[in-house]
Amino acid sequence: MSDRAAVLFANDAFYVAFLSNDFETMETLWARQAPVSCIHPGWHHLKGRDLVMESWRGILSNPEGTPFQLRNATANVHGDMAVVICYEVFQEASLVATNVFVREDGHWRVMHHQSGGSPPPPPGEEPETPETIQ
Amino acid sequence: MSDRAAVLFANDAFYVAFLSNDFETMETLWARQAPVSCIHPGWHHLKGRDLVMESWRGILSNPEGTPFQLRNATANVHGDMAVVICYEVFQEASLVATNVFVREDGHWRVMHHQSGGSPPPPPGEEPETPETIQ
Repeated sequence: MSDRAAVLFANDAFYVAFLSNDFETMETLWARQAPVSCIHPGWHHLKGRDLVMESWRGILSNPEGTPFQLRNATANVHGDMAVVICYEVFQEASLVATNVFVREDGHWRVMHHQSGGSPPPPPGEEPETPETIQ
Repeated sequence: MSDRAAVLFANDAFYVAFLSNDFETMETLWARQAPVSCIHPGWHHLKGRDLVMESWRGILSNPEGTPFQLRNATANVHGDMAVVICYEVFQEASLVATNVFVREDGHWRVMHHQSGGSPPPPPGEEPETPETIQ
């Protein structure tokens, strides 16, 4: 598997955990050696593993979280780090996310996530992944 | 100068170029070896140096660009890459930005920028840089 495919796979795993309220998996997907940070839409930024994990524990403990579709994920890989951009498409609105990954012990793990308001994803642009998560 | 201070200095340089409509300097601040990307608020994502630079050329050619203040810049450095989070405070609204830097030939250069809507920066949090850019 190419680095790019592996990073997009890790990005998919992040959204599978997100959409299935799977906090235990979400926790394993975040970096342990690199310092982490997160910006949820409408929140102040969070810095440090404790604050970031606390936020995900809260978000994923809500069984009525609004479902969304992951669209148009695309990765730029540079050595042992990568930037993934993707769209989080809700029924009424769209967000665009930056997910920064680092390679730790052979695994691509999330170092930073920002998601914020966006136009809908560009139409006609083929996703790099064969299937999108819904 | 510590890596963290150097990254925050590079982040300051990015905003000085931004706020002074200095496209030539802005161009030098972006990575040349790493693949770059950018998400301006309300835009679709841009991938690749040509598209990203074209966007900055357009933005910085507008002499009536709305001024803002850079606030609460904070950096997480991990080897030869770093994530900076900072707030872009306009008179009527605030944005929060992720700026991803990579070290190339001893220089910290921008690999990715995302800026999107945010609450105002958290009050009472001291910026890591002694002075903010206004």
